[in-house]
Amino acid sequence: MLQFIRSDLAQLTAYSTHHTDNSAVHLDRLDVNENPYDLPEELKEKLAWTWQQQIESNRYPDGGYLALKEAIADYATDSSNANFAAANISVGNGSDELIRSLLIATCLNGEGSILVANPTFSMYGILAKTLGIPVVTIARSPDTFEIDLTAAQAAIIDTQQPPIRVVFVVHPNSPTGNALTEAEITWLRSLPQHILIVIDEAYFEFSQTTLADELVQHPNWVVLRTFSKAFRLAAHRVGYAIAHPDLITTLETVRLPYNLPSFTISAAQFALSERQHLLAIVDVLLTERRKLIAELSKHKQLRLWNSDANFIHIRLQNVNEADSKLEAIYRSLKQQGTLIRYTGGGLRLTVGTPDENQRTCDRMKQALVEML
Amino acid sequence: MLQFIRSDLAQLTAYSTHHTDNSAVHLDRLDVNENPYDLPEELKEKLAWTWQQQIESNRYPDGGYLALKEAIADYATDSSNANFAAANISVGNGSDELIRSLLIATCLNGEGSILVANPTFSMYGILAKTLGIPVVTIARSPDTFEIDLTAAQAAIIDTQQPPIRVVFVVHPNSPTGNALTEAEITWLRSLPQHILIVIDEAYFEFSQTTLADELVQHPNWVVLRTFSKAFRLAAHRVGYAIAHPDLITTLETVRLPYNLPSFTISAAQFALSERQHLLAIVDVLLTERRKLIAELSKHKQLRLWNSDANFIHIRLQNVNEADSKLEAIYRSLKQQGTLIRYTGGGLRLTVGTPDENQRTCDRMKQALVEML
Repeated sequence: MLQFIRSDLAQLTAYSTHHTDNSAVHLDRLDVNENPYDLPEELKEKLAWTWQQQIESNRYPDGGYLALKEAIADYATDSSNANFAAANISVGNGSDELIRSLLIATCLNGEGSILVANPTFSMYGILAKTLGIPVVTIARSPDTFEIDLTAAQAAIIDTQQPPIRVVFVVHPNSPTGNALTEAEITWLRSLPQHILIVIDEAYFEFSQTTLADELVQHPNWVVLRTFSKAFRLAAHRVGYAIAHPDLITTLETVRLPYNLPSFTISAAQFALSERQHLLAIVDVLLTERRKLIAELSKHKQLRLWNSDANFIHIRLQNVNEADSKLEAIYRSLKQQGTLIRYTGGGLRLTVGTPDENQRTCDRMKQALVEML
Repeated sequence: MLQFIRSDLAQLTAYSTHHTDNSAVHLDRLDVNENPYDLPEELKEKLAWTWQQQIESNRYPDGGYLALKEAIADYATDSSNANFAAANISVGNGSDELIRSLLIATCLNGEGSILVANPTFSMYGILAKTLGIPVVTIARSPDTFEIDLTAAQAAIIDTQQPPIRVVFVVHPNSPTGNALTEAEITWLRSLPQHILIVIDEAYFEFSQTTLADELVQHPNWVVLRTFSKAFRLAAHRVGYAIAHPDLITTLETVRLPYNLPSFTISAAQFALSERQHLLAIVDVLLTERRKLIAELSKHKQLRLWNSDANFIHIRLQNVNEADSKLEAIYRSLKQQGTLIRYTGGGLRLTVGTPDENQRTCDRMKQALVEML
C-alpha cells in the first residue's frame, strides 16, 4: 500500500461501468437507462459541421457557459411554473460532477454526513465514500418503495457525528421508478434550512413531474437534471443544477474551470434548441413502457410496479431464494442477447425500441422457463 | 449565507477563466499557452466523420478507456527510456481533474497539506482550497526561478498539522518557463515514500525533458501530461497521469465513472495516431520562441529568461513600481489587440504564429513607448 494514500480509500474499488466493452454493441443494451435512439441523422450532420467549421480544437472552451446556462434556464422555465435565469444554473461533467461538487461544498472534512434511502442511485454513496463522507442509509417500503419517513426523521435527529447535512432523493427513484409521494414531499418541505435537499430529476422528461417550482421558496433545495436520458446525449456528459443563486455561486467555485468540452457545450445547446423534435420520442417510449409492463405482468412469477421513468423494476412474487433466481434471469437474458441490470433485490430494465422490447418479452419468457 | 455550505468555502470565489468571451476571438490570444494552430483540415474532417458515423450520441462512453490508455502508454514509452502499459495510465477531464483526484486521494479530511513553490501553476492551490486542504508555499530564486530548496526542506520538516503529503512541481514551471534543475531533481529523489511527488509535464513536448524514466524507481512519483498544449486539443479536455499501478488504481477509484465524453476519447486517440504529423509544429514554435526572446530582449527595460515551454516570462529590469508598470504593459497590449497574462510579478506570453509574434513585438514596442 502506498503510504500517502488515505487509509479509508484502500477498502474502495473503482466503480465498474457497464456494457461498455465493444462486444456489448451487438446486444440489446437495456441496462443503463439510455434513450434507445441516437440523434436524427440530419442533426448529427449539423453538429459535425459545427465541430468542423466553428470549434477551434486548440482553444480552451468558454468556461463561463453563459449561452448554455441561459438556454437551460429557458427550458427549466418552460417546463415548470417558475422563472429561472442563468444565475440559477450550474453545469457539470454529467450530474456525477454536480453530485461530487455538492458533497465537497457541504460535508467535507468531517462537517457532515449524507442520508440516502436504499435502494437508490448508487453514485451518491460511492462519491461520498471516495471523499471520506459518512453515508447514513434508511429503507423504503418493500411494497411501494416509499421512503421510510419515520426512519428518515429519526436518522436526522440521531446522527450527530457528523450531523446529516445533505439528503439525496431521486424523483422518480432509480432503480424502482417511483416518483416522490405527497407524504415524502411534505417531509422534504419540513426539513430545516441547514440541511441541503438534492432532488435528482434525471428522468424528469419521462415523469413530467418536477419540484423545480418550489425552489424559490426553498434555498436549501437543488434540482439536478441531465442530458443523458431523454435528450440522448449520454456520450457527451452534461448535467445541470437548478438552485438559488448563492448555491450556484458555490457550485461554480468548486467546479473545475473548464469542465465541459467545447463540443459538449454545442451539443447541449443544440439539443435544447431542437427539443420539440427530440423530446417527441418521450411519448413513444411511454407507450412502449405501458406495453412492456402489461406484457411482462402476464407472468405470474414476476412482480411489477408502475414506473414514472424510462425503465421498469421487477421482483419475484415468491421471495424464496429470490436473489439467486433474479440473478439467473439476468444471466439468461444476457446469454440470449439482452443486457439488463441486476441491482441486488430486483431487476432494472430500460425501455428500448419496440423491437428490443419485443425481444425482451420473448427472452424473459425463455428465462422463466429455464428457471423452473 | 446558506447554512449547509462549509464555512471555509465562503472566502473563495470562482476561478475566472480567461479570454473566453466571444470578443476575444478577434484578438491574438496569447494568454493561456494554447497551441496557436488548430488541427489540420483533413484531420478535422476525419474526426467529424467519426462522430457522425461511429459514435452513438445516446450511449454512455466506454468508461474503461483501455484503447486510449494503451495508446498513451505507447506514446509515453516512445518518448522516454521506460516501458509503460495501460496499468500505468489514468485519464482525466484535463489534468485539472487528475490534480483534484490526487488531492482527494491523499490529503482530504485533515490528513495532509500540500507544498508549492510560487510563482507556479495556480490550480494546485485553488483546488486544494476548495477541498479545505492547507497549502504551504515557499519561494523561488528571483533570478533563476529555482525552488528555494532550503525553505522546501524546512517546510517538509516543520509542517505538522497536518504534515505535507504532496509536493507539486511543474517541469517546466509555469509561468516562468524553467525546467527542473539537477539540484531540484536530486531533492525530489531524496523525499520519503510517504510524500507524493506530482511532476506536471504539461509542456513536455516543448521541453523534451521528462522524469517519466524514473517512475519505476519511485512509486511515490506521478507524472501529469495533457493533450491541451502541443496536441492542440484544449477544447476537448483530456489529461493523463503516468504512475505506479497502485497509484493508478487509486486514481481510477476516485475519478468519476464516465469522466471523458466519447468524442474526447476519439479525438485523443486520433491525435496520438497522428502524432508525427501534429507534433511537427513543435519545432516551428521553438524557432519562433527563440526569435521572440531575441527580439524582445532588445528592449533594455525588459528582463527575459530562456524558456523550456511554449511561453516566455517577462519582468522589468527596474523593479521600481514594477507591478503597476507590468500591468500597464498588459493593458496596452490588450488594447492594441494582443491578450497576454499578467501573473502578478511578471508577464507570461504564449508563443503564437509568426504573424502573431510579429504583432506582439510591434505592440510591445508601442506599450513601452506609452509607459515612458
